[in-house]
Amino acid sequence: MTVSPAATLRTIRERRPLVHQITNYVVMNETANATLALGALPVMAHATDEVAEMAGIASSLVLNIGTLSPPWVEAMLIAGQTATERGIPVVLDPVGAGATRYRTETAKRILGAVGVTVLRGNPGEVATLVGADAEVRGVESIGAGMEPAELAREAARALGVVASVTGAVDHVSDGERVLAVSNGDALLAAVTGTGCISSALTGCFLAGKPDAPLEAAAEALAAFGVAAEDAAAGAEGPGTFHARLYDALAALDPETLDGRARIDVR
Amino acid sequence: MTVSPAATLRTIRERRPLVHQITNYVVMNETANATLALGALPVMAHATDEVAEMAGIASSLVLNIGTLSPPWVEAMLIAGQTATERGIPVVLDPVGAGATRYRTETAKRILGAVGVTVLRGNPGEVATLVGADAEVRGVESIGAGMEPAELAREAARALGVVASVTGAVDHVSDGERVLAVSNGDALLAAVTGTGCISSALTGCFLAGKPDAPLEAAAEALAAFGVAAEDAAAGAEGPGTFHARLYDALAALDPETLDGRARIDVR
Amino acid sequence: MTVSPAATLRTIRERRPLVHQITNYVVMNETANATLALGALPVMAHATDEVAEMAGIASSLVLNIGTLSPPWVEAMLIAGQTATERGIPVVLDPVGAGATRYRTETAKRILGAVGVTVLRGNPGEVATLVGADAEVRGVESIGAGMEPAELAREAARALGVVASVTGAVDHVSDGERVLAVSNGDALLAAVTGTGCISSALTGCFLAGKPDAPLEAAAEALAAFGVAAEDAAAGAEGPGTFHARLYDALAALDPETLDGRARIDVR
Repeated sequence: MTVSPAATLRTIRERRPLVHQITNYVVMNETANATLALGALPVMAHATDEVAEMAGIASSLVLNIGTLSPPWVEAMLIAGQTATERGIPVVLDPVGAGATRYRTETAKRILGAVGVTVLRGNPGEVATLVGADAEVRGVESIGAGMEPAELAREAARALGVVASVTGAVDHVSDGERVLAVSNGDALLAAVTGTGCISSALTGCFLAGKPDAPLEAAAEALAAFGVAAEDAAAGAEGPGTFHARLYDALAALDPETLDGRARIDVR
Repeated sequence: MTVSPAATLRTIRERRPLVHQITNYVVMNETANATLALGALPVMAHATDEVAEMAGIASSLVLNIGTLSPPWVEAMLIAGQTATERGIPVVLDPVGAGATRYRTETAKRILGAVGVTVLRGNPGEVATLVGADAEVRGVESIGAGMEPAELAREAARALGVVASVTGAVDHVSDGERVLAVSNGDALLAAVTGTGCISSALTGCFLAGKPDAPLEAAAEALAAFGVAAEDAAAGAEGPGTFHARLYDALAALDPETLDGRARIDVR
Repeated sequence: MTVSPAATLRTIRERRPLVHQITNYVVMNETANATLALGALPVMAHATDEVAEMAGIASSLVLNIGTLSPPWVEAMLIAGQTATERGIPVVLDPVGAGATRYRTETAKRILGAVGVTVLRGNPGEVATLVGADAEVRGVESIGAGMEPAELAREAARALGVVASVTGAVDHVSDGERVLAVSNGDALLAAVTGTGCISSALTGCFLAGKPDAPLEAAAEALAAFGVAAEDAAAGAEGPGTFHARLYDALAALDPETLDGRARIDVR
């Protein structure tokens, strides 16, 4: 399957797929706005009374445990199982796995009960989930005991997912191939929720390219990285960068995107 | 009653009315900031332990089901009933009615139990609530089987409310008259929660003009639309537009507002 | 203990302490971004399944009752008790105390059960908690029946905390000394959650200077006020001011900060 963020972006903007997100309180506005700026339609719904119905009409589902609690985890499991049954792609963002037992166990529980398509996390979170050395401080990765390319490959194999490990360079693997994405800007680390946004955009790209999750996940990170590069040019710090990030996502140009994307096979 | 967004805005800024909002997680910060930028005082409170007391000291109440769940719906009913008993105006924003049964039924339940003053929604949501053809994808209106002016009039009659149906042109009706508001900018559709903000500002204008809900609802949309026009001038996309929207709400000038408002009787 | 916001800021940026925040839905993104922009690491976690563990690995804990409900209050008590047992500093922001009985009682309950280090509130909230005359409209202080310097001293004595009473001039007291901080800008009052941000930054400074809470609390307000001054220069209103506030927090310069801080002993 060809890697082309531009082609998938065109599909997203034509079809405007619905991306159902059960995510954390901190970033809901941000991931909704990023989804909308890219060209897809976000919907946030977490009541057990409606999540199966909402997931069933969505083109992808994003689960994010950033501010988890038992009723939200229950909703994630219900929505995730509906998506699995219907072949709707699912992204899991295991925010803070490794920081507390509850987060680690919940991430594992979702991986066990739901057909997760893409696991998108930082090195510490992903390393935690494959049982490797990891240090997670709150929701920040401090370190992981494995090289990121190897970590992505190992996580994909062990967990049966496409693993998308983000950092200064991102590494996405299906257990065989590894795609490295080197777009982005250091300011991404100065704004909360940019990891969560990358998971939401991964959901958008899966909706646009459901049959090639490895490529879709890498394309999402490249597109987001290119937008971050544009947002950083002219930003005066994390606040104006953050506002400009939505401008840049909306302005992503399919004519130039593939040429700017830096996706390499490792 | 004269239509004058400027006069009502002056009243709001003098009295700084408290606008109690039980709304969704995605837009709480945004509706609070819009309320504050306009000149009123927002308060978010949803615990059943306090909503009756909080609604009782407020000048208007805004109910928004964007991320509903049973405890929040219960709080909306309690607060709404207190407001109804005391003659405090209530805005209902039926976010996503038509997308899932739970949303449709909850919106109807609130309309049945609470003296809703203004129903503010998109065409798909409002059409759903009057039983007309509608397509709602997540929280986005894809289509409605009735012209918006007719839809607003019909909804007002059928539901016993002032119906405020927003879109490229907004239509507000009390079942007899229809006011069409044609201020605004296309960028409003590129930022999540701008519909919710229009509901919050409707709450502010009802607090400033409680005896004329048709006029107040139209004035709110005109004022918001004028602010959006100002915010769009100089914005580079949805992110900078969003930041500038609060600047523009705070800078709304009563000296020029009535002249810029485009409110027509249909 | 010397007052030096610059020295504490340097410590924060070197150590990147984890600041655990159990706060309200309206401002979570904002307080997380302010914490990150300053140089510390925020984490939001509220499930009773994990709050003790998360608080136990944090360098400070911030409790904020802005959108309280019983499960969140329970989580605050558990986290607060863990922090107290381990000597981790705790900030309490009693948002809206005085507006409803539930808020007033909850703030008092936390003060009774948790070793609160710093109580950060507006005059109406703090006056409510010491039984003085106060008027609180929603979450806004309308008035208090005591001069703010005296109110801070009295609250510190009566409640056994460092009291940090913010306003046009802020007053921080340990019951003996009073430090007055006169940095800041009027635009802070036009953005929701800036009080909550000052509480979060107080948590950051306590993490950087845990042995001197009076000084740390005043330093936090001075640093935030200096950032607000920088953000206001060039802002066109509350929206662009808000975005620029994170730029300014990230750009705070330890070389000039002490010279710009206006902290006086009263």
